[in-house]
This record gives sequence, C-alpha cells and structure tokens, in this order.
Amino acid sequence: VLVEGCIACDELRDAVQAPGGVIYEDAHWQVDHGLEPIALAGWLIIKPKRHCEHIAELTSEETASFGLPLRNTARALTEVLHPAKMHVHSMGESVKHIHFYVIPRMADVPADGLEVLQQMFEGRWACSEAEAAKVAARVRPILRRLMSEAVG
Amino acid sequence: VLVEGCIACDELRDAVQAPGGVIYEDAHWQVDHGLEPIALAGWLIIKPKRHCEHIAELTSEETASFGLPLRNTARALTEVLHPAKMHVHSMGESVKHIHFYVIPRMADVPADGLEVLQQMFEGRWACSEAEAAKVAARVRPILRRLMSEAVG
Repeated sequence: VLVEGCIACDELRDAVQAPGGVIYEDAHWQVDHGLEPIALAGWLIIKPKRHCEHIAELTSEETASFGLPLRNTARALTEVLHPAKMHVHSMGESVKHIHFYVIPRMADVPADGLEVLQQMFEGRWACSEAEAAKVAARVRPILRRLMSEAVG
Repeated sequence: VLVEGCIACDELRDAVQAPGGVIYEDAHWQVDHGLEPIALAGWLIIKPKRHCEHIAELTSEETASFGLPLRNTARALTEVLHPAKMHVHSMGESVKHIHFYVIPRMADVPADGLEVLQQMFEGRWACSEAEAAKVAARVRPILRRLMSEAVG
C-alpha cells in the first residue's frame, strides 16, 4: 500500500533510487542510504514497506521483524565504518512515512546526539552520491549475509 | 550484568527510581519515564536489562523482543496523550547504556524532530516529577495489558 507524493513510497516503488540502490529488503522492511542532500556517508534509513505513519500502527509482523534488520544494519555499518557509537532516530516529519535513521557516530565527531544531528543537517559531513553509494555497496553483502544467517 | 556508575544500570537495580516507578519490564527490556531534569511528561525510555552500549551487540533474544515493547509503548502513549506523531531516538551518550527515547510530539508542538529535541533539552516542556509520575501511572496498565495480550 504505497501513497502518491511520499518520497519513501517512491523509493519502495523504485521511482526514486537512493545512492547505491536498495541495500536490503524483506517482506516488511527496506534499508537504503539517505537521499540528497546526503548528510553523511553511511547514513542509512530503515522503513516499512507500506505507507504507515505511526509506530503505534505497525502490525504484529512488522513489529516482530523490526529488531533484526535494525541490529544487523548497526552490525554491518560497524564492520564497514567502525563508528564509536550508533545513533538511531525516527524524527523526520517532512516525510511522514515511518523511517528510522541509523547514524554511525564516528570517533572524531562530538559524542553528543543533538550536536551530531545539528551538524549533519548543516551539511558538516555532506558527501557525494558516489561516496554514499560506495558505503552502500560495502554494507549490502554484509547485511544480507547477517539477515540470511538469522533467518536460516 | 549491571555496571557501577551507569545511571541506567542504577535504575535497573532500583538504586534510582524514575518518576512513577517502573512502567514495564520483561526478560530483556524495561520502560521507565525520563529522569530529572524531566523534559516532557510522557518522555519514556526503553533500555535493555543488561549493560550494553552498542546496538550491534544486542543478542538475538534482545533483538527479537525489542519491536513489541517499542510499538506498544507508542500505542499506550497514544492512548493516553493522543500525540500527532511519535519520535524515537537512541542518541544519548552521557549515558552509554543503550536507551531509546519515545517522545510523543503533540499537535501544538512544531512538526520538526530537531526542533522538538532542542526545545525539550532547553526545558521548554519541563514538568514536575508528579506530572511525569501521573503519565507513567496512566501508561503502565495499558502497556502491560498490550504486552500480555501479545505474549498470551
């Protein structure tokens, strides 16, 4: 169930492609790199595969299957980028479709979640689509392996 | 496995009590109201019941059992406060123990996640311990019922 005019739904229907393309998808969740303006290489986004605007309205299946792609996205990003800490946010309201940012907070960046967000949105760590696509390409096989191990 | 000098662990061992006391706990996760300074009545926090600092290091059991208390905390808060949107953040680094804020963004508050955080931390919606405890007391039976229905 996708909605017109929702950029998250546009990604789900492949009308818009995130840098590097889809990183992971299963029946309920999809992981992509953040879109332009690209705030940070490795800024990944997990979203449900149907248009749903309220966490309270996630189905039992979506709910039960959320933890694994979240943790494994963190694991794959950790393997690729070795961040000091992983931050997670579901706060975007210009896109109402539920989406969780997964943000690797690197060791040379302030250990302050609010400052990380402010500096991100100010473009402090902005990167090219090619750089983002490169991280996506490195995360993809690791995340897919972790997910297939967990399911298998 | 709790750690000395970790305020989240102090709450888990009941050395520190959040406003209104423990709202929900199971084998892996605990839900409490946010501590002083209380940024907002209904600012709830979900954390693992052992000291773990990295989402990548959550066990399979913790991972699989995370979605339900997250969604049901959002459901219970929605039933009590009727927010316009639910925000979720795992960003705190002064407390390294993983913890997810669940923040009801009310209709009269800007629909901008960064601004909500900034205004929260500036004390814009600060409330008394009694007010926070009152919300905790209203959320508790709803969340516990939702969790027991899901497990039963």
